Amino acid sequence: MPAELIEDKSISPFGTARSTVNNEPLSKDEVDMLHKYFRATLYLCLGMIYLKDNPLLTEPLKLEHLKARLLGHWGTDAGQSFTYIHFNRLIKEYDLNAFFISGPGHGAPAVLANIYLEGTYSEVYPNKSEDIEGMRRFFKQFSFPGGIGSHVTPETPGSIHEGGELGYSISHAFGSVFDHPSLIALTMVGDGEAETGPLATSWHSTKFLNPVTDGAVLPVLHLNGYKINNPTVLARISHKELEALFIGYGWTPYFVEGSDYDSMHQAMASTLEHCVTEIRDYQKKARESGKAFRPRWPMIILRTPKGWSAPKMLGDHHLEGFWRSHQVPITDVRTNPKSLAKLEEWMRSYKPEDLFDRNGTLKKELKELAPNGHRRMSANSVTNGGSVAKKLHIPDFRKFALEVKKGGIVQAGNMTNMATFLKEVVRANRTNFRVFGPDETESNKLGAIYEAGKKVWLGDYFEVDKDGGNLACEGRVMEMLSEHTVEGWLEGYILSGRHGLLNCYESFIHIVDSMVNQHCKWLEKCLEVEWRQKVASLNILLTATVWRQDHNGFTHQDPGFLDVVANKSPEVVRIYLPPDGNCLLSVMDHCFRASNYVNVIVADKQDHLQFLDMDSAIAHCTKGIGIWDWASNDQDSEPDVVMASCGDVPTHESLAATALLRQKCPSLKIRFVNVVDLFKLVSHAAHPHGLSDSEFRALFTDDKPVIFNFHSYPWLIHRLTYMRKGQQNIYVTGYKEKGNIDTPLGLAIRNETDRFSLAIEAIDRISRLGNSAAAVREELLNMRIRAKAAAYQEGMDSKEVTEWTWPF
Amino acid sequence: MPAELIEDKSISPFGTARSTVNNEPLSKDEVDMLHKYFRATLYLCLGMIYLKDNPLLTEPLKLEHLKARLLGHWGTDAGQSFTYIHFNRLIKEYDLNAFFISGPGHGAPAVLANIYLEGTYSEVYPNKSEDIEGMRRFFKQFSFPGGIGSHVTPETPGSIHEGGELGYSISHAFGSVFDHPSLIALTMVGDGEAETGPLATSWHSTKFLNPVTDGAVLPVLHLNGYKINNPTVLARISHKELEALFIGYGWTPYFVEGSDYDSMHQAMASTLEHCVTEIRDYQKKARESGKAFRPRWPMIILRTPKGWSAPKMLGDHHLEGFWRSHQVPITDVRTNPKSLAKLEEWMRSYKPEDLFDRNGTLKKELKELAPNGHRRMSANSVTNGGSVAKKLHIPDFRKFALEVKKGGIVQAGNMTNMATFLKEVVRANRTNFRVFGPDETESNKLGAIYEAGKKVWLGDYFEVDKDGGNLACEGRVMEMLSEHTVEGWLEGYILSGRHGLLNCYESFIHIVDSMVNQHCKWLEKCLEVEWRQKVASLNILLTATVWRQDHNGFTHQDPGFLDVVANKSPEVVRIYLPPDGNCLLSVMDHCFRASNYVNVIVADKQDHLQFLDMDSAIAHCTKGIGIWDWASNDQDSEPDVVMASCGDVPTHESLAATALLRQKCPSLKIRFVNVVDLFKLVSHAAHPHGLSDSEFRALFTDDKPVIFNFHSYPWLIHRLTYMRKGQQNIYVTGYKEKGNIDTPLGLAIRNETDRFSLAIEAIDRISRLGNSAAAVREELLNMRIRAKAAAYQEGMDSKEVTEWTWPF
Repeated sequence: MPAELIEDKSISPFGTARSTVNNEPLSKDEVDMLHKYFRATLYLCLGMIYLKDNPLLTEPLKLEHLKARLLGHWGTDAGQSFTYIHFNRLIKEYDLNAFFISGPGHGAPAVLANIYLEGTYSEVYPNKSEDIEGMRRFFKQFSFPGGIGSHVTPETPGSIHEGGELGYSISHAFGSVFDHPSLIALTMVGDGEAETGPLATSWHSTKFLNPVTDGAVLPVLHLNGYKINNPTVLARISHKELEALFIGYGWTPYFVEGSDYDSMHQAMASTLEHCVTEIRDYQKKARESGKAFRPRWPMIILRTPKGWSAPKMLGDHHLEGFWRSHQVPITDVRTNPKSLAKLEEWMRSYKPEDLFDRNGTLKKELKELAPNGHRRMSANSVTNGGSVAKKLHIPDFRKFALEVKKGGIVQAGNMTNMATFLKEVVRANRTNFRVFGPDETESNKLGAIYEAGKKVWLGDYFEVDKDGGNLACEGRVMEMLSEHTVEGWLEGYILSGRHGLLNCYESFIHIVDSMVNQHCKWLEKCLEVEWRQKVASLNILLTATVWRQDHNGFTHQDPGFLDVVANKSPEVVRIYLPPDGNCLLSVMDHCFRASNYVNVIVADKQDHLQFLDMDSAIAHCTKGIGIWDWASNDQDSEPDVVMASCGDVPTHESLAATALLRQKCPSLKIRFVNVVDLFKLVSHAAHPHGLSDSEFRALFTDDKPVIFNFHSYPWLIHRLTYMRKGQQNIYVTGYKEKGNIDTPLGLAIRNETDRFSLAIEAIDRISRLGNSAAAVREELLNMRIRAKAAAYQEGMDSKEVTEWTWPF
Repeated sequence: MPAELIEDKSISPFGTARSTVNNEPLSKDEVDMLHKYFRATLYLCLGMIYLKDNPLLTEPLKLEHLKARLLGHWGTDAGQSFTYIHFNRLIKEYDLNAFFISGPGHGAPAVLANIYLEGTYSEVYPNKSEDIEGMRRFFKQFSFPGGIGSHVTPETPGSIHEGGELGYSISHAFGSVFDHPSLIALTMVGDGEAETGPLATSWHSTKFLNPVTDGAVLPVLHLNGYKINNPTVLARISHKELEALFIGYGWTPYFVEGSDYDSMHQAMASTLEHCVTEIRDYQKKARESGKAFRPRWPMIILRTPKGWSAPKMLGDHHLEGFWRSHQVPITDVRTNPKSLAKLEEWMRSYKPEDLFDRNGTLKKELKELAPNGHRRMSANSVTNGGSVAKKLHIPDFRKFALEVKKGGIVQAGNMTNMATFLKEVVRANRTNFRVFGPDETESNKLGAIYEAGKKVWLGDYFEVDKDGGNLACEGRVMEMLSEHTVEGWLEGYILSGRHGLLNCYESFIHIVDSMVNQHCKWLEKCLEVEWRQKVASLNILLTATVWRQDHNGFTHQDPGFLDVVANKSPEVVRIYLPPDGNCLLSVMDHCFRASNYVNVIVADKQDHLQFLDMDSAIAHCTKGIGIWDWASNDQDSEPDVVMASCGDVPTHESLAATALLRQKCPSLKIRFVNVVDLFKLVSHAAHPHGLSDSEFRALFTDDKPVIFNFHSYPWLIHRLTYMRKGQQNIYVTGYKEKGNIDTPLGLAIRNETDRFSLAIEAIDRISRLGNSAAAVREELLNMRIRAKAAAYQEGMDSKEVTEWTWPF
């Protein structure tokens, strides 16, 4: 065998602690006290899963004390609580500014137990008081209809990371500590979660963390050993591989492994302390010298039995240390008296009477183990980001206006111009605004930002980087080729009270569909939580759009992210498609000001015709939808047809179609309507931005044909307008999933969104044209054929098309 | 500093080769020949990017020889071609069965050049012949409107992985070698791609590869150094970290680094040979002993300059070895005569006259370097999966029928029952069918499969695994907690000629929205490629659906994957929502038989009422939509209202509403319509499954109210039916993004999909009820209030609800 076989094996979680560091820093008394506190949290976890009454087991456990339906997860609780408690000790010792991120799935009981014991829960929810009645309510609400969930939901003080969908704990943690130099995000990572793609790459975030200006993330990878029904990969590879993996990721892994309580307490206490000291030493070195560098930051690999402290066996089956302890650990307590007795015995083994006084209040000597006030991880104000957010300073976007004397004449780069505004936003907000993107900021024509803030890079530097590399240890642009990681960073950055923007190729934003879904859900639930202050919006700028993928082809054509977003709660989603450069500026300004939304802005990065001067753009974007008088000729009468558009490229083609129609059929009365704010189309009953029916009618009429050219899949417009009177007259064109390597016009023709097809459609729908229609139609058809032939023969659209301007 | 700082640095890609293995296996002549072949491929790459004429530079290069628009990517080409060529040598030497996966973005020129030189391209596309005229056409079509793209698109012989969206090369590769014991997937991974989440976790696939029955993946991580505009993370970490990372991932990394041609040829030749030998040794050991184990499989880390062999500088800017060589390397050749001259000089530096004869045919002595016939990687028949696919043996699903004497009486587990069928499918297809899922197969009630095939696990084993672990080295179920990885495996498995099924929680399928999008695009393009044989459908079974997330809460509620799928080409997507167990069996049978689709099947995993006996279920599913006569009472007349449903839970509530209406208002005529095949609702002009308008009308009428209870977001139904006459009469209920911890009925009430709300809506819309309506309405409202109160007080739905059966 030329290369070594794997001879060292993965190790069992059971036994006396084995750890990289162990100087036994705790006295016997301290161990006892910590363990009591630990028992108190575990008792509470079981209480949440099982009880609706008799919370302190002051009487024998009976069926009537149990919830009717048992729901909740036990498997991850002990490991998480163990970590939380041990970090409390260090917070007190070093006066740390820290909070807790719970990555493993369904780990809420462990976190809730700690939050309750340190008093925050009762402060925030006074009827969950620190006494028997409060504890009863606290138990009952858990995983109970109308109550709270089994993740660390927005209702949970101290949480910025729900953890319902797995994989984002580390990227959220990094996002929260950027520009928060004193903050430590203690981040528990589940070994199930660690198998996900987003988590697996997010370990590389250290190459983007500046020890001078950013805080620190202290990950605790919890080798709990099992997922729902399988061992985890990382718990079943050799110790050597495991260590190598995290060295490879750029961390210094410290192991704490075992199940024996006393030795585990000593091992965890010394290891966590070692890590905190190491973090502070690195920060001190960097800050005193003012020179940023990338340390191999410490992390902990904590291996404990799944369901730690549960009974070893249930009948013939393993419980502690096996996947059977994942969820409700003893399931048949309602039907099997022996199981009920076993549960009671187990709960009593934590000795609640030693931990709580008769009133159900945690004993004073235990209470003192937790930090106080805002030093409690659950009361750290960054976790209620809106409460600490600094207002974004936004320079006057009007200063960056493109000059437009007449619509449809001048070409300019909407994105290139907007970048100069963005640069000033960066400049004016040096510690609370960042731009994120997966390696595309330059390609997306936003490179001007680098003048105000370069790309953060803590990886190694080469000499060649001076040749326009735009890399720096202290920058304001965050780029890694992982949509998941940059989206996660941005979410963490916002939720901890700052502002930002993600820029992304339109088609590849689907990679984070799921993350954006979850963020929308988080925001919506926050609206129901009184004490949560609003946070900055998640601004997503989509560019390199479907209509300009001349060489990237079919794989780069997917505008369907809008459909995903439109399914989310109307309270939290906004979609804008500015038609030109001044509208883009106005929309961006608005999005930076609006809080608690997911704002999606779609704008292409190539040069485009400009339509509105700045005042008109502001007026148009403020309304969100409107008639463009300068492009219409129905001012003195009812229109024969409404030409409508939404999106920059479609607006260009729609105007060109309008011009063709007016040139070929001068008697036609045409109204031109443009939509910037997509939700204007919906009924105002369905979305706060929606137009009333009379407003809608005033624009589109009830009975005239509407030729609507849309940026995305056409049926989205039908889905938005199905309640409108006259909706059957709306003919929508858009991307119909047809494409390959095409010129811009060629692609439009394939999808019938080109000027010729639009004009033909209009003619087919206008009844009063009569006999003259046929000749015009024929002429338009021939024009389309010629344009198409030119595109596919020459490889470029003809000048008549690319240099077209508004002729009136 | 307690832990070490990072002192070893990342290294430059330039200089004499440094490699882990180097025994200089090549003679001077062999090096020269290989290098000539290499030059030929590089020459072709530049030709593709720049030329439409004068392909062999037989005359001086002029503007008219250039394409009008320059598109294409140079940066990754040399490294990929270098690898391809060196593997060719080993294919010939060892008679290997191999193919090539091109992971880095836009690497098509390198692959196309090789395919052309080895003759496959001309065999498949005779007008791209191996002569001057063929070469001219071959150049011109590249990234040219109407031509082929810059990824390895379906038009490319030998490709199963387009690489338009990054991150799936390794998972596709593993999928292709499962159950293909002799196959080697030589897999180039870009260092940009390597930053993505999906790629980062897919390295762990080795824990699921059995060396006895599966083939091997040989990854070549190409440290090309740069993405579009940034250095890559892996090229800028220390050598020590890089090595550790891949040891940690479970591989044995072999380095080949440098830019000097002669020494690099020797290094690559010896390293690849070493890896191939190692793979064969491991396989031999496993196969001779019959004992599977997990070797630390070999992989290569190839570090070469980005744009290798390009000019070092362009003016003051770096080109070779910098991101500026990413795309078209010299951009101003059409406007700057000096640049044109530089390009010509560069192209001539490859000495085409030494490589091709006067006719433009590769010289014979070079031609001999490539393998022949099906040993050419581009002609490996697994890459045209449909051509080698074995038919799936499908047992008669009727044998697994649930007994249903009368609709709406018996409860049964649709999924549990279907699992017994699936078990027999597994049993009947031991080497060409697998079930994939992210740790949820058991939770999804499909555990019966394990009797026929366990879960593949090559990680370490513990004693406790015997306690129902269902793990084995040779299994048929593939589970890793990465939706990306399992989806990628399945795609690779199917594209290389096999069959499979992915099962997934409904809400988390959004994690792979983007992958499914890309697979749909691949399938659609394949329809345009004549020589591509159809492959098995990608079957996605979604369960743990939105309506049964009693304790998982809001984060686990998202049925919107259907919207994403419905945006894809109608030629390739199918969506089924079987209402009960027998329908689920019939649908699954159909999906296994249908080829070249993405089939999405939505079915809940809990126990549900059964409605149709097997014959009725087959008839119903074959039609895809139909009236349920047994639930209707309009047989002798026009209905007053149509109650319609799509999905298992909604059908149950809709039937309960129908029963309520018939009980409270016996004179009402109600028609009950159920939809299994969602695309039946669309016009047949828009989807091959769509009903004609008259068929639609025969079911739903033109003018009667339709109360449609839908599984997913309600507006999807409006988007599908907007063209139908009478569509304004369709009132659709569905999931409206309202949820938390709720009982099943509580969640339905929140979203107004419950029986009471449906019945109330019907009453509000039926005109002829007159005065009696108010009292019935009041009664229904009270029933809803009582049901809701019970749910939220008791934590469970009342028996009247949970034990409801069809009363007629």
